[in-house]
Amino acid sequence: MASNTSEKLLLRGGTIVTADSAGTIVSGGSILLDRGRVASIIPAGSSPQVQPGTEIVDLTNKVVIPGFVQTHLHLCQALFRGRADDMELLEWLKHRIFPFEAAHNADSMRASTWLALAELIRSGTTTILDMGSVHHEEEIINAVGESGIRAFVGKAMMDLNDLYPSLKESTAASLSTTRSLIDRWHASYDGRIRYAMAPRFVLSCTDDLLHQTKEMLDQYPGVLLHMHASENSHEIEAVRSRTGMENIVFLNHAGLLSNRSCLAHCIHLNDEEIRILQTTRANVTHCPSSNLKLASGIARIPHLTEKGINVSLGADGAPCNNRLDMFREMRLASLLQKPIHGATSMPAKTVFAMATIDGAKALGLENEIGSIEPGKKADLVVLDLNNVWDPSDSSENPYSAIVYSAGPENVDSVMVDGEWLYRKKEFLRLDKEKIVLEARAQLSRLLGRMH
Amino acid sequence: MASNTSEKLLLRGGTIVTADSAGTIVSGGSILLDRGRVASIIPAGSSPQVQPGTEIVDLTNKVVIPGFVQTHLHLCQALFRGRADDMELLEWLKHRIFPFEAAHNADSMRASTWLALAELIRSGTTTILDMGSVHHEEEIINAVGESGIRAFVGKAMMDLNDLYPSLKESTAASLSTTRSLIDRWHASYDGRIRYAMAPRFVLSCTDDLLHQTKEMLDQYPGVLLHMHASENSHEIEAVRSRTGMENIVFLNHAGLLSNRSCLAHCIHLNDEEIRILQTTRANVTHCPSSNLKLASGIARIPHLTEKGINVSLGADGAPCNNRLDMFREMRLASLLQKPIHGATSMPAKTVFAMATIDGAKALGLENEIGSIEPGKKADLVVLDLNNVWDPSDSSENPYSAIVYSAGPENVDSVMVDGEWLYRKKEFLRLDKEKIVLEARAQLSRLLGRMH
Repeated sequence: MASNTSEKLLLRGGTIVTADSAGTIVSGGSILLDRGRVASIIPAGSSPQVQPGTEIVDLTNKVVIPGFVQTHLHLCQALFRGRADDMELLEWLKHRIFPFEAAHNADSMRASTWLALAELIRSGTTTILDMGSVHHEEEIINAVGESGIRAFVGKAMMDLNDLYPSLKESTAASLSTTRSLIDRWHASYDGRIRYAMAPRFVLSCTDDLLHQTKEMLDQYPGVLLHMHASENSHEIEAVRSRTGMENIVFLNHAGLLSNRSCLAHCIHLNDEEIRILQTTRANVTHCPSSNLKLASGIARIPHLTEKGINVSLGADGAPCNNRLDMFREMRLASLLQKPIHGATSMPAKTVFAMATIDGAKALGLENEIGSIEPGKKADLVVLDLNNVWDPSDSSENPYSAIVYSAGPENVDSVMVDGEWLYRKKEFLRLDKEKIVLEARAQLSRLLGRMH
Repeated sequence: MASNTSEKLLLRGGTIVTADSAGTIVSGGSILLDRGRVASIIPAGSSPQVQPGTEIVDLTNKVVIPGFVQTHLHLCQALFRGRADDMELLEWLKHRIFPFEAAHNADSMRASTWLALAELIRSGTTTILDMGSVHHEEEIINAVGESGIRAFVGKAMMDLNDLYPSLKESTAASLSTTRSLIDRWHASYDGRIRYAMAPRFVLSCTDDLLHQTKEMLDQYPGVLLHMHASENSHEIEAVRSRTGMENIVFLNHAGLLSNRSCLAHCIHLNDEEIRILQTTRANVTHCPSSNLKLASGIARIPHLTEKGINVSLGADGAPCNNRLDMFREMRLASLLQKPIHGATSMPAKTVFAMATIDGAKALGLENEIGSIEPGKKADLVVLDLNNVWDPSDSSENPYSAIVYSAGPENVDSVMVDGEWLYRKKEFLRLDKEKIVLEARAQLSRLLGRMH
């Protein structure tokens, strides 16, 4: 770790897109880092006082942004990319995803996690909220911890599964495994890894499991809740027929909604449900690529943000995306709403905030990450926007270039906690070739186990 | 030119996605090229008879596809990327695009064209249908010709412009300039450059101009017609109030629809208009990113293809996209229809055909390009799909990896007419640094001319 981290580091001469509340952009400025945090931001023209021993990194012609925060991912599904295309959600779960997840062993789970982490880091994501599978959560947590990324992790809780009965567990096992994981791993890896309880969705959980989840959440104030909700019209119909309530109304009755809740999708909501999200301050994760690919629908994001509901972004899983790339999500999150809500809706700057500071808010980390401000953790991404074929100066309107034109190929370097995880397009903690080879080998064995 | 072209070339050992009518994929096969054409495709295992002097290129672990065909582009707008975001079509034309185009001089037009061509070539596009601006078409044609790309070009014809009156010309000038351009440039550059007459859209053309366009088309059988049609609801309303007809009905009355017509967008169509497209065999270019970004709407592509209407893809212009990247268009063309038409609609293989052979059909070039088959021109793209984080063997389901996961960063090499234009991520005909610097300089001068 030491080789990638200096006590003090001066990042000099880039365009700094701070994502602070004033939307400050510092052209040609410098960022002084001290023990993994932003110590100060120095405007162009002032010469920063550099103490002896400070490492200086020249970022002239580069753009520095806060690392992306993805608030809904399934690392365990990275192995299944391209193997579940062109299917609707419940069929996709029943015939592909649940059988695939059930076939995971510890080795394939580790391989899938590393594959996803490599893609995430090289495309500029520095913080994630992951939903694991029913089993092998510790494999995920160890890989996430070793990768250097910041994460909320949590095993999927499923004590019901009508779609694929062999992927479930008892209510007691779900709760006790979750409790052990929280006790062992919450706030581990220097606080970089935290826990989010993950009852997968209403249809995978008995009322008892949801009730006890609520009780456990009350016992662990730093732990979050991570669920899918109101993604698919058949799903909400099934929830309605089981509970007699709309999905969000039911979750609210179960006491599960608060500013510690992250709900993925939230496409099919009525006005009462939107009011509930508003009053409970529950967070919504918008997953535009996944919502299109699974034919789930288009979430009414401008309606939600207008009501003050916090919305952040996530790529969801590789089989329903098929990338884990925040650039694709930002671009689509903006473009997708325009035919519905008008061309001025979801401008690049708004979407950029969703991808950074609003993600931090969803995770309760808005005082730690999500923008480049003194005192915050140094979770930073360095972009080289000279390859987006944009003849404009990137400091003029960096949001347009970042959201509409850029891609992972424009990511030069990525830092978490002041440590370079990816520098000048090379991984520093990961061995990319090894990860891809191991993923191939493990996928082949997993498919063998299924046949 | 000689240094990038061999008389005979053997591309050995790649996965060949032929895009032929049977959907043949040849894993580990070879392609023998002879004087810029595909001579034969040799399956894995047979050793090809290689004559002395044949250059051998090893493509093990690479995927070879037909070059992408984009059937609606505005090279002249590349300079304006990022300067017209979050606006609706008619406002966007009036306040940004028409003033920008009117401010072009020969130098800025050349710079814009080169900037667009560099992006297109490096992202795997080998054939384009471009709509120029009112002036400086020869600057475009020369750059296109020198770049090595295959193209239909054509100056925009505009003898009406209520939105921005200084960007127009007389009817006579529009026609005579067009005729001179056809006479001089159609079938130039060894037949690589052809002409498409381009009355911009109904609202930019008098009835007389459209009438005489039809007459000129009758005189030049190899020339195509390239127009915008039915992109925006205000546009079709204005057409209706001027002509008393729906847009496509009016174009049909004007005699402008045939299999030589390429109509960009076609979002707002009624059933009669769809029937007209069907019976006239007019081609539709779908531009999904542009249609979202300008809030124009979502074209009902599965309805059109079901009726046998040929649909191909285009990125449109940099200010309404903001990329010129077929990978973004393919992915979005697939994903976008699924919430409306179901998860199985627009599968990857269908969209890949739209991006290749269906584009060739739109241009009447289906016997020359669009698939990898003996006798066709060697317009090929070599992909390296080892970086898409897909653990599957890319020969198993290359369509998924290409459409859903890949991007320009996966383009290794690009060939037109058997000549490498881009080889191992380096341009062979273009100087990328010079192009970007010149674009910046010319943009700055153009903005100066406007103020």
